[in-house]
Amino acid sequence: MDKMIIGIDVGGTKVAGGLVDNKGHLDKTVTLPTKASEGFETSFSQVVTVIKRLINQAGGSNHIQGIGICCPGPLNPRTGMVINPPNLPGWTNIPFTERVEKEFQLPARLENDANAAGLAEVLFGAAVGYNDVFYVTVSTGVGTGIIINKKVYHGKNGAAAEGGHVTIDHRSPYICGCGTPGCIEALAAGPAIVRRARVKLEQEHTLPSLLRDRTQNHLSRITPEMIEETAKAGDKVAKSIIDETGFFLGVWLASMITLLDPDAIVIGGGVSQIGKPLFDKIRATIPHYTINRQAENTPLLPAKLQKDVGIFGAASLFMQEGENAEKA
Amino acid sequence: MDKMIIGIDVGGTKVAGGLVDNKGHLDKTVTLPTKASEGFETSFSQVVTVIKRLINQAGGSNHIQGIGICCPGPLNPRTGMVINPPNLPGWTNIPFTERVEKEFQLPARLENDANAAGLAEVLFGAAVGYNDVFYVTVSTGVGTGIIINKKVYHGKNGAAAEGGHVTIDHRSPYICGCGTPGCIEALAAGPAIVRRARVKLEQEHTLPSLLRDRTQNHLSRITPEMIEETAKAGDKVAKSIIDETGFFLGVWLASMITLLDPDAIVIGGGVSQIGKPLFDKIRATIPHYTINRQAENTPLLPAKLQKDVGIFGAASLFMQEGENAEKA
Repeated sequence: MDKMIIGIDVGGTKVAGGLVDNKGHLDKTVTLPTKASEGFETSFSQVVTVIKRLINQAGGSNHIQGIGICCPGPLNPRTGMVINPPNLPGWTNIPFTERVEKEFQLPARLENDANAAGLAEVLFGAAVGYNDVFYVTVSTGVGTGIIINKKVYHGKNGAAAEGGHVTIDHRSPYICGCGTPGCIEALAAGPAIVRRARVKLEQEHTLPSLLRDRTQNHLSRITPEMIEETAKAGDKVAKSIIDETGFFLGVWLASMITLLDPDAIVIGGGVSQIGKPLFDKIRATIPHYTINRQAENTPLLPAKLQKDVGIFGAASLFMQEGENAEKA
Repeated sequence: MDKMIIGIDVGGTKVAGGLVDNKGHLDKTVTLPTKASEGFETSFSQVVTVIKRLINQAGGSNHIQGIGICCPGPLNPRTGMVINPPNLPGWTNIPFTERVEKEFQLPARLENDANAAGLAEVLFGAAVGYNDVFYVTVSTGVGTGIIINKKVYHGKNGAAAEGGHVTIDHRSPYICGCGTPGCIEALAAGPAIVRRARVKLEQEHTLPSLLRDRTQNHLSRITPEMIEETAKAGDKVAKSIIDETGFFLGVWLASMITLLDPDAIVIGGGVSQIGKPLFDKIRATIPHYTINRQAENTPLLPAKLQKDVGIFGAASLFMQEGENAEKA
């Protein structure tokens, strides 16, 4: 029997793990709370428990090829160090793969969420059959992954592919937590969409909108889901906000195509669930902001792996192209 | 004796060729006018003559490993097709490598100028010892090359690495020939620098400047060299234009680091000759516009290969890492 891979997705609220075979089939999952507020050691023991249960379900560690872990950045995939993820307080300079390897005597690998998700989409998701892929997830932030020849591209410090913090408007009043004005996260992620809706309704006091009605004019209560729903119900303000979001993403993806000319772009994350109106605007915008005359033919694919993308992504770290050659 | 490589640099005004050995030493060069206005066949026979002379100087074609050619884009390095370079009228959909291979019964390869120059800088120029390099040339345009693992990164259509047309200011009044507002070429290439100087002096009628004196207030006569010279002479307007150019390049390179996290950046081209004041401003700007906390440690290297960079670049197409493995 082929060995299984354990994929572990560490998030701010839960640790989810699963057994994945070499064909990308997910069997057995285990989930526990991260207990992030109790600090690293508590969370680490939650991770250990999840892994132990999965090893048991696989019939012992001789049935396991390795343990892939994805985690919010910043981290260094080369050294396996978690540096200081904002939503995992106290996880400062943790030699994560070393700790896991010592605990289980199995090889471990670490990757940030977006890179791992991008790899998983290429290996067994929306972008199967493509080699060079730009992966985007738009939710509370904008994460990206650059996959070249079916492998994650890391760059010098393992810090590449932070495409969400590439600016398209360095004079923008919207300044990201990263310090960069007008990076796409500051313009098009969930919180940015909500803010743009709120600012628009504040500036135009008399503008009618379902968003005003639903929040009883408590505009701070607007959510991305509310914008999506009211747009579907025909609300002009909500529709214009989605349109603008598609425009920003289109300008930005046009630059990504200009630079990377990928085989395909995969778009996932909560905001991408808006679907057709968003994708249509992105597609319509791209050709006007790139020198690449084939840009409109670059496939723009909705992500396929949904809630288990983190588990798949973590497991896929043991399935990268050239993996065996590299290790041989 | 090791075989030599012929490197051919086709430009709008001249065809320059040379014999390069496997260690990157340039021996013998031959240069002829391109005669671009006479159309493709005339120019092609100029190219053929240059190659013939170099083959003779090498002692016959059995001493030649291959013929590398660099040429202005757009072109497809994979198929060896020149598509339609603006400064080579009539070169429309030319199967260039096929023509050269048929003529000489030797393998030929084609690459655009900036990619080839970037590769040459990595193999035997400023970036020797680095694997992943972002190459920039700032002159009448902004060309870029992405070198990954010491090989040119091409992307799907062979059209990747047009970094000069990545926008940092999609609301900019400066719209590039490529159609994109605020791409770095529209902000920081030679013509953009000249235009910004002119606009500044037109808007501020009474502002004294050596640029006014030297052109006798015929501001359309300003050149990039004039800006460089008057800045050195202490002119405040010229200095502010150079400062702004460094700022734009810094913002843009910050985004490139955010995305690619390269081992090093190499900057060449006429505008880069401004040197220290430009490089200092770029360096000072980068950390403020990137999430990459190691960005300030990314080496920013002045290009080393000067007038023969095109010949070196063309020849280097036969020296890429993994070249032998790929062809075996």
